[in-house]
Amino acid sequence: MKLVVLKFGGTSVGTIKKIKIVANIIESYKKKKFQVIVISSAMSGVTNDLINKSKKISKNFSLSEYDTLVSTGEQAACSLIAGRLIEKGILSRSWLAWQIPIITEGAHKYSRISRINRTKIRGFLKKGGIPIISGFQGINKDGRVTTIGRGGSDASAIMFAKFFNAQKCIIYTDVEGVYTTDPNKLKKAKKIKIISYEEMLEMASLGAKVMQPISIQDARLNRINIEVKSTFSKKSGTLITKRSNIKNNRIITGISFTQNDAKITLVGVKDKPGVAASIFKPLSKNSINVDMVVQNISAYGKETDLTFTIKNEFVNKTKKIIYENKSIKFRSLLINKNVSKVSIIGVGMITTPGVTYRMFQTLANNKINIQVISTSEIKISVLINKNSVHKAIASLHKEFNLNK
Amino acid sequence: MKLVVLKFGGTSVGTIKKIKIVANIIESYKKKKFQVIVISSAMSGVTNDLINKSKKISKNFSLSEYDTLVSTGEQAACSLIAGRLIEKGILSRSWLAWQIPIITEGAHKYSRISRINRTKIRGFLKKGGIPIISGFQGINKDGRVTTIGRGGSDASAIMFAKFFNAQKCIIYTDVEGVYTTDPNKLKKAKKIKIISYEEMLEMASLGAKVMQPISIQDARLNRINIEVKSTFSKKSGTLITKRSNIKNNRIITGISFTQNDAKITLVGVKDKPGVAASIFKPLSKNSINVDMVVQNISAYGKETDLTFTIKNEFVNKTKKIIYENKSIKFRSLLINKNVSKVSIIGVGMITTPGVTYRMFQTLANNKINIQVISTSEIKISVLINKNSVHKAIASLHKEFNLNK
Repeated sequence: MKLVVLKFGGTSVGTIKKIKIVANIIESYKKKKFQVIVISSAMSGVTNDLINKSKKISKNFSLSEYDTLVSTGEQAACSLIAGRLIEKGILSRSWLAWQIPIITEGAHKYSRISRINRTKIRGFLKKGGIPIISGFQGINKDGRVTTIGRGGSDASAIMFAKFFNAQKCIIYTDVEGVYTTDPNKLKKAKKIKIISYEEMLEMASLGAKVMQPISIQDARLNRINIEVKSTFSKKSGTLITKRSNIKNNRIITGISFTQNDAKITLVGVKDKPGVAASIFKPLSKNSINVDMVVQNISAYGKETDLTFTIKNEFVNKTKKIIYENKSIKFRSLLINKNVSKVSIIGVGMITTPGVTYRMFQTLANNKINIQVISTSEIKISVLINKNSVHKAIASLHKEFNLNK
Repeated sequence: MKLVVLKFGGTSVGTIKKIKIVANIIESYKKKKFQVIVISSAMSGVTNDLINKSKKISKNFSLSEYDTLVSTGEQAACSLIAGRLIEKGILSRSWLAWQIPIITEGAHKYSRISRINRTKIRGFLKKGGIPIISGFQGINKDGRVTTIGRGGSDASAIMFAKFFNAQKCIIYTDVEGVYTTDPNKLKKAKKIKIISYEEMLEMASLGAKVMQPISIQDARLNRINIEVKSTFSKKSGTLITKRSNIKNNRIITGISFTQNDAKITLVGVKDKPGVAASIFKPLSKNSINVDMVVQNISAYGKETDLTFTIKNEFVNKTKKIIYENKSIKFRSLLINKNVSKVSIIGVGMITTPGVTYRMFQTLANNKINIQVISTSEIKISVLINKNSVHKAIASLHKEFNLNK
């Protein structure tokens, strides 16, 4: 009997009416003779409400109590889903992390699942039961409740798919899948039917909010097929799988873009070893993530210009750090908050020559100036003026045949 | 080192501000060198919200899922209290039923605590820690979450006081203690400093809402001293203890009264064995609680009048049952919804002759007609016209020196 893991996000179980829809979806897999494991998030809003309460208690709320507190949200959602299935005459029950148990390692609030005991859940599946499992949580070796730092309930779902050797892990959410680019920005954006883990990782890192990179990486390492689809639509979603499962000869799979980026240029930096480190070390210490970095060739032999991008919100902090650090010598500091990064992503570019040229030519034809370039094996990113983003993605979308 | 159990009700932890007050109270016991065990209810409103959700899912919501669902309320409250104590630099943590464990027996939603494992909590107390324990819940032998049917978190507190041999169990609530009568009805009502379990049981059964009878009975059987006091006042509350601890020579401790009672009289019932049973059996089956019962002597030899009281809300159902049951023969049915039961309670009446007389004379002096009488060892109840309740309690309060 084939097994699927179904994961429902907070908006999918956000109201009683939606929980009833979720129960119908779960039932449909049972009718199709699947064994089903369900992972649920908390009803949307509940987790934030609990977090706000903890903040009012203390700005420095104990992390172990934080985990015990916020995990109640998933617990309640699971009971409601199981209760609905029982009402429909289906054998089901909620399973809390300690009842299984789901063992985690690492600090409170930032734990990772290390092991899932299969015995009880297997027994329940064999009886024909549908376990509804609290996502986002586990217990540690001290028997305390823990929560999973990054990836949340998605990470739980992928670990269950791994430990129970599921045929597929289906992430039910409030969007229909992954798109070639943001449909809110470009109407011609198309839903991607199939995408590789690596492409999805780049898309996610670049702002596609469907799944967190850490969960995609977990799925990739464990070769778990993930389908992302909407709870509120019957349409098929996007399959995230290994490259060898992808048969079509697309060059580019998707186009992503960032917002709220800022470009910082230090003009006339002394061109000697250790200068870049002396600039980036204090930024890193202050949790300021530096994205693209370009250092021009030294024009006068002893000086160079150093350009990098950061999120807009960190501009003031960055300025302060640079000005206060006396070991950083430079002539002037240029800041441009009016930039965006546009990236084309696709495993196809590895085997297709001239993709870089086609991208640059397309932008040039549209009179879009490229300020900074950065590339990886399956991605080319350019920094451009913010006002040209729509023109850039529309023209690239067309150039790489994503309009279909 | 002496140990106290502190229990906080839902209104005591109803807001973040109140939880901060609760943390201060807990800290004050630590400063007084007590070992402290805290039991908390859910923040007021939370449990009802969860129950409403379950009702929207199913009119017949699974009781095992109900327990898992509603127990999240206490879990969250405990984390917030523990988080606040940790913020104050006090060693504390939340303890969930499964972590201790608290073992219950009986059906879901109606469980009773049968055993509390002392090992981990004792270890934590020895380290100087203050455990914050989720009231109202336990786990059963199958490792499912259960909730305690009657008495709720009070019952949890009393069982902890028993298993840990506490010097006292303090029930923190939103009233200052137990009063000689309802202060909303009679301004001269006084707070009772000390009351016996038996008197408190009668008071509770008769409508004093401070504690449920089942919890008082548990305390009585285990000889646990209970103090009921307000979370929001420094005044001492009411001590509920065994009779031999009570030194004063009060005759009457309190006066209680019911509202929404109805008197039903079946006129001309056949006076033969089994008639009363044939009337009360179907009422009991329909969960209609019959309170006072009087059967007059048969006036004509073969017929009698049977009078009993029930809550007003059950009048229609009762009428239907009586009329539809063809085996119940009677001449006519009289219903009076305009009655109240007034009771005087006190262990002192056992050793004091003439209490009954004094009560009846006081009512007669005030022209209050007594319709039905019922007595126990430490209680005399009379059924009177509803409109005379205030006059009755005021005059009895004075007669038995409760005005001080």
